[in-house]
Amino acid sequence: MNLDQGQVLHVVGYPEHRPLVWEIARIAYERGAAYVEVTFDDPRVRRERVRSAQEDTLDWSPPWTLALLDYLIENGGAQIAIGGDPEPQLMNGLDPARLAKARPRAARARFLQAQGDRKIAWTIIACPTDGWAETVFGEPDVDRLWDAVALAARLDEPDPVAAWRERVDSLRERATMLDERGFDAVRFRGPGTELLVGLMQSAHWLTGEVETTSGRKHLSNMPTEEVFTTPDRRRTEGVVRSTAPLALHGHIIHGLEVSFAGGQVREVRADDGGGELVRELIATDAGAARLGEVALVDGTSRVARTGIVFVNTLFDENAACHIALGQGTLEAVPDGETLADAALDALGFNDSVVHTDFMIGGPNVEVDGIERGGAEVPLLRGDEWQLS
Amino acid sequence: MNLDQGQVLHVVGYPEHRPLVWEIARIAYERGAAYVEVTFDDPRVRRERVRSAQEDTLDWSPPWTLALLDYLIENGGAQIAIGGDPEPQLMNGLDPARLAKARPRAARARFLQAQGDRKIAWTIIACPTDGWAETVFGEPDVDRLWDAVALAARLDEPDPVAAWRERVDSLRERATMLDERGFDAVRFRGPGTELLVGLMQSAHWLTGEVETTSGRKHLSNMPTEEVFTTPDRRRTEGVVRSTAPLALHGHIIHGLEVSFAGGQVREVRADDGGGELVRELIATDAGAARLGEVALVDGTSRVARTGIVFVNTLFDENAACHIALGQGTLEAVPDGETLADAALDALGFNDSVVHTDFMIGGPNVEVDGIERGGAEVPLLRGDEWQLS
Repeated sequence: MNLDQGQVLHVVGYPEHRPLVWEIARIAYERGAAYVEVTFDDPRVRRERVRSAQEDTLDWSPPWTLALLDYLIENGGAQIAIGGDPEPQLMNGLDPARLAKARPRAARARFLQAQGDRKIAWTIIACPTDGWAETVFGEPDVDRLWDAVALAARLDEPDPVAAWRERVDSLRERATMLDERGFDAVRFRGPGTELLVGLMQSAHWLTGEVETTSGRKHLSNMPTEEVFTTPDRRRTEGVVRSTAPLALHGHIIHGLEVSFAGGQVREVRADDGGGELVRELIATDAGAARLGEVALVDGTSRVARTGIVFVNTLFDENAACHIALGQGTLEAVPDGETLADAALDALGFNDSVVHTDFMIGGPNVEVDGIERGGAEVPLLRGDEWQLS
Repeated sequence: MNLDQGQVLHVVGYPEHRPLVWEIARIAYERGAAYVEVTFDDPRVRRERVRSAQEDTLDWSPPWTLALLDYLIENGGAQIAIGGDPEPQLMNGLDPARLAKARPRAARARFLQAQGDRKIAWTIIACPTDGWAETVFGEPDVDRLWDAVALAARLDEPDPVAAWRERVDSLRERATMLDERGFDAVRFRGPGTELLVGLMQSAHWLTGEVETTSGRKHLSNMPTEEVFTTPDRRRTEGVVRSTAPLALHGHIIHGLEVSFAGGQVREVRADDGGGELVRELIATDAGAARLGEVALVDGTSRVARTGIVFVNTLFDENAACHIALGQGTLEAVPDGETLADAALDALGFNDSVVHTDFMIGGPNVEVDGIERGGAEVPLLRGDEWQLS
């Protein structure tokens, strides 16, 4: 987070994450944080809400939640969000429409806007829990999951911070190479996948390192192994098969297949009713059925090298190429935060209150950059980076 | 809480209270609550704050905390605060001045004001935890503590709600009798205690039942066994010895003795440095060194009948007569919420951001009402109610 003296830090986690939250609070106060606000998200309270609350209140954003966000935005605050859902299957059996609706829509939109405007320093991390370990290993072996998380986070390096600086530098080199090539599209080809993602002409490729408008750099994910950009929301075509399960709204979705035409999702299939959840997701707003991100990850990813499917987007998306339905990344658009909505819209930028990544890469998926003239340039083969 | 459809409910508890919070959320949503906001208070995060945060930030009230309070006040919201500190000794060894300062002063004042104005429906309950049970029994026998709490809360009655209605009716009769007698003062006499608490001339005696300005009745404590009033802050004289340990700011204070003159605390003594904590408390503001409450409890109290010292103010104050340093109770003053501060001040009403009860009654403490002419009327003898 590269926390500065006098910053307010908002930490969002599950109650099961308390020991990590204590350490974060300790370090933050020792570094001079003005205040550490902790929100413990309790999915069982949310489940009661999804079950029984009045329909028209489900997407309400409490004014105090907005007040916190506004404070962080106006005062250059920081937010650490901790994943690692202790009960990833808790929402099974609930009405998918109510489940998808039960999120604070205005607060979510305001946060995504603040991310795009680089007004908030933010990062997503994850903390092992019994429930997450059980999802991954079939038994609550939280120590084994900690080992995997530590490896993925380069905590085995003599100087993990230096190791991350080095890794992010090499990712930034990739992003620069991709920018220099100025590809028109990226194509994914593999079992069940034949997908062309049209890129936005002016957009840059990015790494997980973000610099806020106030000039402080931070990593937006830990771990982070991707280079990514925001595609043209009108130009995705074809079909794609997900290569890892997707944890969504308290469900785990297997066997996801999505087809696109004219940039828009046309068909969704998944095992065991998971398709219904994704259909509810893409019905959230117009942008939820279009792409906001395409990301490339190779086999040198520490997450990929663990060989583990974490059933957690933060980790799985850093093990494999992925795309995201919903909100685009404004940082990828030159001077994006100064452009009016209409100008962004004309560029093909996608706007939504959702942003849901799912994994489409792996050793059997070939990835090519397509030049404006049609030439195909290999980017990934057998999970190995090709461009130099 | 007598929760109404469309109300927003704020629940404040420790993470250890989650199972109770889930039940509260379930029932609230089933009764049509618009939203249930849950704040999990994490004392270990607060400890980091007390230890290391910049001195001038310690009493800061986050704007989002104020926004939540304002919403509850403006929209007739409700708050359930759950006690039962899982680590009551956690703050041992911290600087008492920083510990006393590390509370959101403006938010606390606004909440006390809202209570006095009867704008919020609020109640304090407690939920057993291992740590609380260990404090009470010397071992984490949480089942035994649940049994005691259930007994104190009349959950053994065939119809606990009816039992509480009956009990509160009988307490209200006592309050009416006391009002009719119009005592000038209450005197406590016992080992180490010779205390005269001068009453406010116009003030009423109250029970734990509160009616909000919007007309909804609720119990402000569960359990509640007291009748109480707000004394004249200028007219407490003498010395008092606490008859139960006091849990304050993460410490447990034993052997507390306080002397008063002209309504103000003059001397504080307690075992093991506890006096320092109370001195920091009364230094909070001018009203913190004067009384805001005097309460009478007899031996028919269910809490008293458990025979257990709960080391928890909610329970212990409902087992014995008590007084409180700090904020007075505006509900006790006729048309109190319409009076200007100067008028309240002239009546002897006490204003503070703190309100800390401590127990001064018991079988060996005689309590008398003192009439304006000087006549002494027995109120309690051997914990038995005398007035009829």
